[in-house]
Amino acid sequence: MTDPIRIEADYLIETAYVPEQAAEIMAGEQSSGTFRPVPGETPELKERAAARVERLTSMGTFEAPSLPGACQPTDGQNYQRAHVTLSWPQDNLGPSLPNLIATIAGNLFELKPFSGLRLLDVRLPSPFAAAYPGPKFGIEGTRRLAGVEGRPLIGTIIKPSVGLNAEDTGALASELCQGGIDFIKDDELQADGPACPFDDRVRTVMAAVNAAADRTGKKTMVAFNLTGEIDEMRRRHDLVLAEGGTCIMASVNAVGMSGMIALGRHTQLPIHAHRCGWGALTRSPMLGWAYPAWSKLWRLAGADHMHVNGIDNKFSEDNDSVIASARSLSDPMFKANPMRAVPVFSSGQTVHQAPATLAAAGSDDLLVTAGGGVVAHPDGVAAGVTAMREAYEAALSGVDLQAYAKDHPALAAALKAF
Amino acid sequence: MTDPIRIEADYLIETAYVPEQAAEIMAGEQSSGTFRPVPGETPELKERAAARVERLTSMGTFEAPSLPGACQPTDGQNYQRAHVTLSWPQDNLGPSLPNLIATIAGNLFELKPFSGLRLLDVRLPSPFAAAYPGPKFGIEGTRRLAGVEGRPLIGTIIKPSVGLNAEDTGALASELCQGGIDFIKDDELQADGPACPFDDRVRTVMAAVNAAADRTGKKTMVAFNLTGEIDEMRRRHDLVLAEGGTCIMASVNAVGMSGMIALGRHTQLPIHAHRCGWGALTRSPMLGWAYPAWSKLWRLAGADHMHVNGIDNKFSEDNDSVIASARSLSDPMFKANPMRAVPVFSSGQTVHQAPATLAAAGSDDLLVTAGGGVVAHPDGVAAGVTAMREAYEAALSGVDLQAYAKDHPALAAALKAF
Repeated sequence: MTDPIRIEADYLIETAYVPEQAAEIMAGEQSSGTFRPVPGETPELKERAAARVERLTSMGTFEAPSLPGACQPTDGQNYQRAHVTLSWPQDNLGPSLPNLIATIAGNLFELKPFSGLRLLDVRLPSPFAAAYPGPKFGIEGTRRLAGVEGRPLIGTIIKPSVGLNAEDTGALASELCQGGIDFIKDDELQADGPACPFDDRVRTVMAAVNAAADRTGKKTMVAFNLTGEIDEMRRRHDLVLAEGGTCIMASVNAVGMSGMIALGRHTQLPIHAHRCGWGALTRSPMLGWAYPAWSKLWRLAGADHMHVNGIDNKFSEDNDSVIASARSLSDPMFKANPMRAVPVFSSGQTVHQAPATLAAAGSDDLLVTAGGGVVAHPDGVAAGVTAMREAYEAALSGVDLQAYAKDHPALAAALKAF
Repeated sequence: MTDPIRIEADYLIETAYVPEQAAEIMAGEQSSGTFRPVPGETPELKERAAARVERLTSMGTFEAPSLPGACQPTDGQNYQRAHVTLSWPQDNLGPSLPNLIATIAGNLFELKPFSGLRLLDVRLPSPFAAAYPGPKFGIEGTRRLAGVEGRPLIGTIIKPSVGLNAEDTGALASELCQGGIDFIKDDELQADGPACPFDDRVRTVMAAVNAAADRTGKKTMVAFNLTGEIDEMRRRHDLVLAEGGTCIMASVNAVGMSGMIALGRHTQLPIHAHRCGWGALTRSPMLGWAYPAWSKLWRLAGADHMHVNGIDNKFSEDNDSVIASARSLSDPMFKANPMRAVPVFSSGQTVHQAPATLAAAGSDDLLVTAGGGVVAHPDGVAAGVTAMREAYEAALSGVDLQAYAKDHPALAAALKAF
C-alpha cells in the first residue's frame, strides 16, 4: 500500500439529483463553497482548497427515499444511489482528528439533496500517522501482558452490570481469577458511581488479581472502566498502573475524540474501547457511519481493543456485519504503521459461538467476553471460565463442541445450560 | 419546577413486543440486567440499582419496521410505538456527563426488540447542576461583551469556508467590522490548518476588531474555531483572551463530551457550540437523538450559543423542527440554574428570514449568522451587514421588509439579490 497525498473518504449516497452533481455539492459544502458564490472564491482558491470528487459508481435506483426532508425527483424519476469518493487537501485542516471529523462527517449528513448519506471508509495521508500514537499495545502487547499465546483471550464482564459494591466486585474477581480467566472487564454502566467508587473497586479487584497471580503466575488482565473527564481518566489510569493493573476501558462515544486522544497520549496500558452508543450512528442503513471509517479514527487515537459485537448477538446486527467489522480492524492504516486493533466479540456470548467466532476473526488474535455466559454457569463461575476455555480449545483443534464435551464436564454443562 | 430525585429520560420506541415488556427490557439492559439472570442479581440489588419504567403512552401501530434487524411481530400483529420514560438511581453513576451518555444513550439503540428507539429528552437531579458549570455567559454575558441590547445579534461567517489565509481573513474581518457587524464566526471547516494557522488568524482578525473598536467604540464578537485536542483548545482560548477576543467556537460532536467539559471548565469566554455532524445522530426519525436531549448535555457542559439551523435553511430540516429546537434552549434545566443557551440561527440565511426567525425564537434573544447572505451582497460586505441589521429592525418594529426597504437601499438591494 501507499499512503494517499490527500485525505480520502468513501460514502454511500442516495439522491434525487444526478449523482455526479450531488457529489459536487458535497465536495463544495465541505470545502470552499457556500450556498451561493462569494467574492473571495476565486479559481486559484478553489484549486488550492476545494474538495474533489475522485470516483463515483452507480448503485442503482430506488422509488422511495430512505430519509425524510430531501429534495424530490422530478416526475417519473427515481432516487439514485452511488458510491462516491471525495478527497481534500491535507492543508485544509492539518493532521487533526477532531477537525477531520468536522470535515468528513460534518454538516453533509443534513444536506437537502440527499435522502441518504453514509460514511463508509477513510484513508489518511502519512502526517496523521506521525501526529497520533495509534494503539500502543495491539495484539502483541495485550498477549504479553495477559500471558496468553496461540489462542484467543477468554474474558468476562462483571455482572450484574451495576449494583455490586467494590467488595462484592473484588470477591467476584477473585473467583474468576481462580477459574483461570484471561480477561475481565467492567460493564460500560459501571465507572465511578458512589455505590461502587472507581478507586475502591480498583483496589479490591487488583488485590484479588495480584493474590491469584502470586499463587499461579498468571495475572488476569482487567479493563477498568475509567470513562469520565480528562483529568479523572488520567488520574484513574495512574491508579490502575500503580496497583499493578494491565488495562483500562473507556466508552469512546461518551468520552469523545479529544478526550480519547488525551487518554491515548497519556496511557501506559492498553485501551479497551467500548462502543456503547454506536447504534445511534449506524443502525439506519443509509445514514451515519459504517464501522471501518468510525473504528479507524479511534485506532488512530490509540484504541487497542475495539468492540465488534458478537456472533449470534442479542442486538440487531447480523453476523455478516459483525464479521466485516472484526476483519476491518486488521486493515492497515498506514504503510509505516498498520495500527491494527484487537477485535472484541461480546454480547450474548456463550460456549456455543466459539467455532463461528474463531472463523469470523480469521485468526486466533481476538478477545471474547461472555458475561452471563460465564457467571451464570450452573456449576459456578470457575466452571463458567473452564467451559469457555474448553470451547475455544475445541474450536482451535477443529473438534466438534459436543464431541469435546464428552470428557469435559464444564463444557458439557454449559452446552446444556446456555 | 422541581429537580427530579432520579435521572429521567424520555424515549420514542417502536417494537414488535408488548411495549410495556419492551420498556422493561430497556430498563434491565441499561442497569442491573444482562441477557440471562445472574447469581448476584438479588431482589435487594434490583431495588437499589435497577432502572424503572416510569411512564408509557401508546403512540399507535405501524405495519413496517423503521429500522432493520429487529424482532418481528407474530402473524397478523403490527409494530407498536410508544413514548416511554425510564429513570435511574443517581447513585448508579454519580453526576458524570460522560457516564450519563453511556447510560441513557448507550447500547440500547442496538437492542433487537426495537425497530426504532430515539432519545427525546432528559431531566437531571440537582447534583448535576453542582458538578458542571453550565453556560458561563448565556444571553446576558453575550450581550454585554458584544454591546448589543434590545435586538438580535447579527452575525456572519467567514466565507469562503477554507482557502483564505490569515491576512485575507483579517482583511475581510476589517470590512465586516467597518460595516458594524455584531458577530463573526469561523466556518467549522476552518480551525488550524497550515494554510490558515489559528494563531496567525487570531492576531490578524483581532487587530482588525480592536482597530475598529478603537474608532467606533463597538467591539465585534468573533467566535474563533479552536476545535482540537484539549491542550490545544486551552492554549488557543488563552491566546484569544490575550488578544482581546470575546468568544471561542468548538464543534461539539468532533471534540466530544470530555473535551467540551474541559473547555467549559477552563473558559473565560462564551462558547459558541457548532453542531456539525448532528445530522448523523438525528436524521433518521426513529433513531438517535432529538435536539432537546442532546443540547441539554452540551448546555450543562458549558455551551453558551447553540446552533439550531435556520428558518428556510438549505438542509433537510423543516421549520417546525428548527423552531422547537430553538425554544428548547430556554427550557430551564434546574430549579437553581436554568442554564439557558442562546439559539444560533444559521444556514442559508438572508434578509428574507428576519421576521420568521424573530417569531421562531419567541424573543429577540437570538443570534443569526448569514455567510453568503452578507458577504455576497451586490454592494459589498458593508452593505450586506447594513441590510441584515435593517431587516431585523423592520421585523422588530413589525414593519414589512419591502415597505422598510423603500428608504433603506442596502435592504432593498439584498431583497432583490437574495
